[in-house]
Amino acid sequence: MDSTEELLGKTLAEKPTITEPQVGDLKSSSSSVFRKKVVNTLTSAKNLFYMPSFKIYDSGVSGLYDYGPPGCALKSNVLALWRQHFILEENMLEVDCPCITPEVVLQASGHVDKFTDLMVKDEITGACHRADHLLKDFCNEKLNKELNLLSTEKIKEYGIVAPVTKNPLSDPYPFNLMFQTSIGPSGAVRGYMRPETAQGIFVNFKDLYYYNGNKLPFAAAQIGQAFRNEISPRQGLLRVQDKSHPRYSEVEDLEFLMFPREEQGPGKDAVILRLGDAVTNGTVLNETLAYFIGRVYLFLTRLGISKERLRFRQHLGNEMAHYAADCWDAEIECSYGWTECVGIADRSAYDLRAHSEKSGIPLVAHEKFSAPREVEKLVIIPVKEELGLAFKGDQKKIVEALEAMDEKEAMEVKAALELQGEVEFRVCTLGKAEIKKEYQRVFTPSVIEPSFCIGRIIYCVFEHSFYTRPEDEKLNVFRFPPVIAPIKCTVFPHVQNKDYEAVAKKISKSLTAAGVSNKLDTTGTTIGKRYARTDELGVPFAITADDDTTTVTIRERDSRDQIRVEINKVVRLVQDLTNGVRTWADIQSEYPRIPFKKINDLP
Amino acid sequence: MDSTEELLGKTLAEKPTITEPQVGDLKSSSSSVFRKKVVNTLTSAKNLFYMPSFKIYDSGVSGLYDYGPPGCALKSNVLALWRQHFILEENMLEVDCPCITPEVVLQASGHVDKFTDLMVKDEITGACHRADHLLKDFCNEKLNKELNLLSTEKIKEYGIVAPVTKNPLSDPYPFNLMFQTSIGPSGAVRGYMRPETAQGIFVNFKDLYYYNGNKLPFAAAQIGQAFRNEISPRQGLLRVQDKSHPRYSEVEDLEFLMFPREEQGPGKDAVILRLGDAVTNGTVLNETLAYFIGRVYLFLTRLGISKERLRFRQHLGNEMAHYAADCWDAEIECSYGWTECVGIADRSAYDLRAHSEKSGIPLVAHEKFSAPREVEKLVIIPVKEELGLAFKGDQKKIVEALEAMDEKEAMEVKAALELQGEVEFRVCTLGKAEIKKEYQRVFTPSVIEPSFCIGRIIYCVFEHSFYTRPEDEKLNVFRFPPVIAPIKCTVFPHVQNKDYEAVAKKISKSLTAAGVSNKLDTTGTTIGKRYARTDELGVPFAITADDDTTTVTIRERDSRDQIRVEINKVVRLVQDLTNGVRTWADIQSEYPRIPFKKINDLP
Repeated sequence: MDSTEELLGKTLAEKPTITEPQVGDLKSSSSSVFRKKVVNTLTSAKNLFYMPSFKIYDSGVSGLYDYGPPGCALKSNVLALWRQHFILEENMLEVDCPCITPEVVLQASGHVDKFTDLMVKDEITGACHRADHLLKDFCNEKLNKELNLLSTEKIKEYGIVAPVTKNPLSDPYPFNLMFQTSIGPSGAVRGYMRPETAQGIFVNFKDLYYYNGNKLPFAAAQIGQAFRNEISPRQGLLRVQDKSHPRYSEVEDLEFLMFPREEQGPGKDAVILRLGDAVTNGTVLNETLAYFIGRVYLFLTRLGISKERLRFRQHLGNEMAHYAADCWDAEIECSYGWTECVGIADRSAYDLRAHSEKSGIPLVAHEKFSAPREVEKLVIIPVKEELGLAFKGDQKKIVEALEAMDEKEAMEVKAALELQGEVEFRVCTLGKAEIKKEYQRVFTPSVIEPSFCIGRIIYCVFEHSFYTRPEDEKLNVFRFPPVIAPIKCTVFPHVQNKDYEAVAKKISKSLTAAGVSNKLDTTGTTIGKRYARTDELGVPFAITADDDTTTVTIRERDSRDQIRVEINKVVRLVQDLTNGVRTWADIQSEYPRIPFKKINDLP
Repeated sequence: MDSTEELLGKTLAEKPTITEPQVGDLKSSSSSVFRKKVVNTLTSAKNLFYMPSFKIYDSGVSGLYDYGPPGCALKSNVLALWRQHFILEENMLEVDCPCITPEVVLQASGHVDKFTDLMVKDEITGACHRADHLLKDFCNEKLNKELNLLSTEKIKEYGIVAPVTKNPLSDPYPFNLMFQTSIGPSGAVRGYMRPETAQGIFVNFKDLYYYNGNKLPFAAAQIGQAFRNEISPRQGLLRVQDKSHPRYSEVEDLEFLMFPREEQGPGKDAVILRLGDAVTNGTVLNETLAYFIGRVYLFLTRLGISKERLRFRQHLGNEMAHYAADCWDAEIECSYGWTECVGIADRSAYDLRAHSEKSGIPLVAHEKFSAPREVEKLVIIPVKEELGLAFKGDQKKIVEALEAMDEKEAMEVKAALELQGEVEFRVCTLGKAEIKKEYQRVFTPSVIEPSFCIGRIIYCVFEHSFYTRPEDEKLNVFRFPPVIAPIKCTVFPHVQNKDYEAVAKKISKSLTAAGVSNKLDTTGTTIGKRYARTDELGVPFAITADDDTTTVTIRERDSRDQIRVEINKVVRLVQDLTNGVRTWADIQSEYPRIPFKKINDLP
């Protein structure tokens, strides 16, 4: 699952797809002020959640970002929670495949031919632009029309020119979004950086099916980087199965914002629906799709994404990827507008069929019937006399071909011949239906694939978690849920004092040994300033050692309330609070809180 | 850190560098029998620790492997332990940078020019071979000579031909080991898949230094995939600092196998040294290098690598990478021989200097002196009269150049001129030393870089963890330490029974909620067979529910001893046992064990 973060950058630098009408000037200006404040806090060298990649060089590559220390820790925690929420709780089969993929695999999947964007070139400078982006901008500015009414051929018709240079543009041409490379020293084997993590699962279907005891449905997952030369990569995870779901009842009562295809139009908005109702009335096509929509909703809200700013939008017919039969995106509202963060696609049997055909290895499942089933089959009986007269020496071949035809095929041949007026004599009759016994069904399973762009999700978590203290707008806070907070706890002496420091150091060391990331702060700055510093890093808890030799205080970040805890219990308590075993609310009865108002922890 | 596993395959498929004389036939044959047994167990579809990538295709790419479900879990646990052992316990600054790297970065680092292997081509078929491998094989077979006496030019001289085809070979030519690609649709920006994770840290030096409060030393780390077109990628992690180490005392008493450069020769072997002694006598050059050798030793043995089959070998002069000043490899003995798994390189200031020069951004540290230091500087005083006569109009330039020279430079010019017999007149005198005040020292810090090939380490963990029960060689066991075991616990009813099953299901659900990976087994097979199945997956604990309604048994994998634990305590106990808080030995007093001999859990 490393790293979708490859292109966290792209998320930030490129305008993500915005599916709503452009926001008005006023709103967009306040959005951009908010964004600037959050981004400044995140990228400032004292916080270093992330920073532009290769920035000491003018490398010709912009829009890539690195995660710095707290960003790495947050990402690692988000991925651990993802593993817990999906792999462990869903009993998924995880795989981990190479990023570099031989061409044949991506030919079968359709990526070599179809994974393209239409580009146009500035005919003077050679700079490239996405045809659909130029059209969209043109529509928004000049025509106020829906993009999907226009095809990219309209670029010439409307006289659209290159942005900035205003030079003429070439005709649109497809540009493949994969990074191409070659494998091995001979240069003969062409390969690509994988454009999605799903293919690695598909090509392992047979082994995974066997590992699962030849039983369907099963879920498989892969966490890892995908590489796209233009757009954001995603996390891949999928489920191979029929379309009912055994745990569907756990999610059907969830209610949240949904935005079905037919409801999308000018001035329309997402509405709150009960997931079970959306399945009943056919808005969501099947239980498995609904189950994963529900699980994704639960995952994102566990990360701290606001329920009011999260919706599930169904793709319009012309939006879907080449492999998708249906697709719902989890979109999160941030300062860029509603941003696609998770795609939940019904890929039907597209990929497994494609790999079966290309590799010649059947990727199918067998459903054994509990008892053999009797199946009626119509039988084709060639009229040998007529055929003998007509075909002479070839009669035998013709008879075999006719006998091998199934009913549907035979009817098609008949219809085709009749259309051409070529049916001059009766070559065969359809005999009486014959009863055959079948013991199993062989079929290519369907796939529901939720895929996560962890980079975008993390960026939205940053925005949704950010606030400033009401009494001072310079006091920035990230209200990360403890389970994903990069640093779980700061530890400090109340004032500079050798004994307090000794206690603080001992606690810090025990926290580290217990795997709880923490920061010891023995600087002499005021406790208020130290709290402010940890708030800006989103640290949920702060332990302070003072003149009480048996207890310390724990301060919670958002309420700023404190409790007193015995020193020998503090590590276990913070561990429980940060790995989700207990919440701050849970422990109120055991540890009476000292509300914030009564003490003064401001600078 | 995803994935060094990219090329776990290479580790297995290619013969890793073997630094010892070839093992004899007998030993090598028993090695290969052992390897076959381990590998069969690992790759069998019922276990699926790993499998060949893209195997449904004849893709032209061999030697790549995917991790299957238990392999993924193990890798994820190894990386979590790595994070705990290095990032958390060493307070390292973690970063996470893109895999695709613009060319300019890798020009500065030297990879574009120097990161090559010498190849030769089969002149008929075009197949490529590594020149050093062919020579090595030739030496081993024909000459019984040391490779390092030979250069690759000897290929022609010795008449070496292509293996298998026996065709003539081309002259050796350098082949760059990086995967090249291009970034963006114009194709104008050349990039490479990063060949190591270290460069991402170097180019972020300035920000990381600031984030660390402008203090040295600090350690930075990156976990991630590196891509090499021929050899195994590694995990990167490094430490930027001066060469003493504050925590050196924690490792100096460790004793283990070391193999210094000057001890390596025919018939010589590694010897057990105390790390502190190796530093004192100059075998290991500095404390920081020694500190990381010690930490790597502790990490590998925590994973279950046997102390007797782990050694630290110093690189010979002709083995080192282009950036290395010194290098020690952690080598693990497995069925392939002694295999390099961790490299601990002293990169001195090579990379930071290279990036400073290429980018024009100084990547330096400032050491402020507690009090200004007075420094004596010799002053060069040009003899203007003489120069005026000799150089006329150019006199001014010459005077300036002379004044700008420092003492060393001036002396060199003087020596050079004298050598050529060109000193005909005195152009300057060295004036009296002048006293200047200096307030800080500006310098390019040195870097010690331990880098881990997680794929190879995991493979060695597999081999070192594997054994068969003495009473039946079909009973395979992996004795993974609980902290890295892919599945921590199986849960089953003692026999098929509704009540037992209900208890087992409830415990399994609680374990999942607590983040403990577990497997519920309600099949009707004998308990002995179920134990055998979990042993083969390396599951350290098995919980069995029986007719006691308040307690269950926990069975430990290696001793096969059991304890009885109250149902409401079992989840916390297994959690503690598997995350390293308590060991099986620790809990003997609290929970008296029922030794294996007294009960019969065999099939």
